Amino acid sequence: MSETTVAVLGTGLMGAPMARNLLDAGFGVRAWNRSRSKAEPLAEHGALVFDTPSEAVAGADVVITMLSDGPATSDVLFNQDVAGAMKPGAIVVDMGSIKPAEAKDHAERLAQNSLLYIDAPVSGGTRGAEEGSLAIMAGGEASVFEAAEPVLQAMGRPVHVGPSGSGQLAKLCNQVIVAITIGCVAEAMLLMERNGGDPAKLRDALKGGFADSTILQQHGERMTTGNFVPGGLSRLQVKDLDNALEVMAQANLRLPMAELTRERFDRLVSELDGGELDHSALYLELLDINGLRAES
Amino acid sequence: MSETTVAVLGTGLMGAPMARNLLDAGFGVRAWNRSRSKAEPLAEHGALVFDTPSEAVAGADVVITMLSDGPATSDVLFNQDVAGAMKPGAIVVDMGSIKPAEAKDHAERLAQNSLLYIDAPVSGGTRGAEEGSLAIMAGGEASVFEAAEPVLQAMGRPVHVGPSGSGQLAKLCNQVIVAITIGCVAEAMLLMERNGGDPAKLRDALKGGFADSTILQQHGERMTTGNFVPGGLSRLQVKDLDNALEVMAQANLRLPMAELTRERFDRLVSELDGGELDHSALYLELLDINGLRAES
Repeated sequence: MSETTVAVLGTGLMGAPMARNLLDAGFGVRAWNRSRSKAEPLAEHGALVFDTPSEAVAGADVVITMLSDGPATSDVLFNQDVAGAMKPGAIVVDMGSIKPAEAKDHAERLAQNSLLYIDAPVSGGTRGAEEGSLAIMAGGEASVFEAAEPVLQAMGRPVHVGPSGSGQLAKLCNQVIVAITIGCVAEAMLLMERNGGDPAKLRDALKGGFADSTILQQHGERMTTGNFVPGGLSRLQVKDLDNALEVMAQANLRLPMAELTRERFDRLVSELDGGELDHSALYLELLDINGLRAES
Repeated sequence: MSETTVAVLGTGLMGAPMARNLLDAGFGVRAWNRSRSKAEPLAEHGALVFDTPSEAVAGADVVITMLSDGPATSDVLFNQDVAGAMKPGAIVVDMGSIKPAEAKDHAERLAQNSLLYIDAPVSGGTRGAEEGSLAIMAGGEASVFEAAEPVLQAMGRPVHVGPSGSGQLAKLCNQVIVAITIGCVAEAMLLMERNGGDPAKLRDALKGGFADSTILQQHGERMTTGNFVPGGLSRLQVKDLDNALEVMAQANLRLPMAELTRERFDRLVSELDGGELDHSALYLELLDINGLRAES
């Protein structure tokens, strides 16, 4: 058993399996979730479950936040007194997806409380969280990254990409690629289907070639079987793409494909009621603009 | 040594290494290229090199065409009397990228000469051709595919996707994915670079996550190092995307991301003189629309 204690704040679709992997790796886990019912099942696996985040972080060496966005994370850290309840020198590892500027702000404010911080958002979805195979993009001081690395390795493959905020910047790059790749896989699936081809054979044939990707194999299959149980939520793609475009707009730069993809995810969410569907449901938006109805 | 003799018509960037792999696998190879100088080096490895395609195909069991487009292939097959010079029952394996309708037409015309045909375009680029690891998408009769399969296996990983034309349809799907994925990797590289991040660390961090792909690793590196030696030519992306959009337009359907990507590759070729560059040079077009000059 490790002597390192980890608090996990936010045990939803991603946080819960991540906490499970920490428990399996021998870490002591103290869990909190706004809806306590989502944290309760972790107790069976040895986690301590708390009613407030400040109770959960007491004595923890590492505090993982896995919350919906920057304001939610900031609220928990600073308004619900997590920062005040942590032991000096402990590390906040923010694994949620927030803006790079918010991550830098959190790093500065926590430093004033003698607390350390890395931003370490993830890619790989619920499957990656369950398998402990998440891509983890970490920004912050190298020494803090190294201190947190054994904890991160229990959940996936951490890479230190640069100073505070860099992890979130890398995550935005990740999301730009993921969102647009979903869009192009959707177009390929439609092109194949509407001309009498078999999308399953297509995915097999493309394995190992330049067009191959996890998204082609996993999300491509979701599109043709109509399985849009999340996974990654469509509405979060809009948030992530907005954040990427905002970072670029601040530098007077444009990302035309991200812009188009952002518009289409927004349409999926706002007009087609797809916000709670897996992001592979962008296929439904493609069907819709082509006057085709989803067959399910 | 196999007793199967293979004629290879078109020994350019792709065809030459494919012929090498056939020789290494023990097939007898008879080679022809319009510029004979590109076929000559194969003679050192045991190929017979001919001045005309009809001489090259004499006695061959399998005739591979690897030419620039449908009209070039049709010209060689029917105007330069390849069809007339082949032995009855031999198989034409068209591994170039042509339109699905052209592939169906070739199949029908060759059948009238008692010749067999599969369309079997590839993905994987010059590297895949050299390594014998091409994704090979084959359309045609199952029995013809099976007869040609040992030859195809010497060059990569063949998958039978359906009747004549299906291989070319799959290749169009492949190209839609490849072209758009290049575009999104370009946007991610620019987003990372312009905000002080390190694209090499980004590529490392994204390994194994949803954003990962051969294009991220290979073409992403080309973008940040400015190495646009082909590989896959930008001008061929315009041709392939045009073919994909044409197939869809015939069904009154739209692929909005393929349309945007087609416009941008066209601009790279027609305004930025990038037609002979690797398709990863779409990054230069992204720099250009952002008023940034390529630094090389």
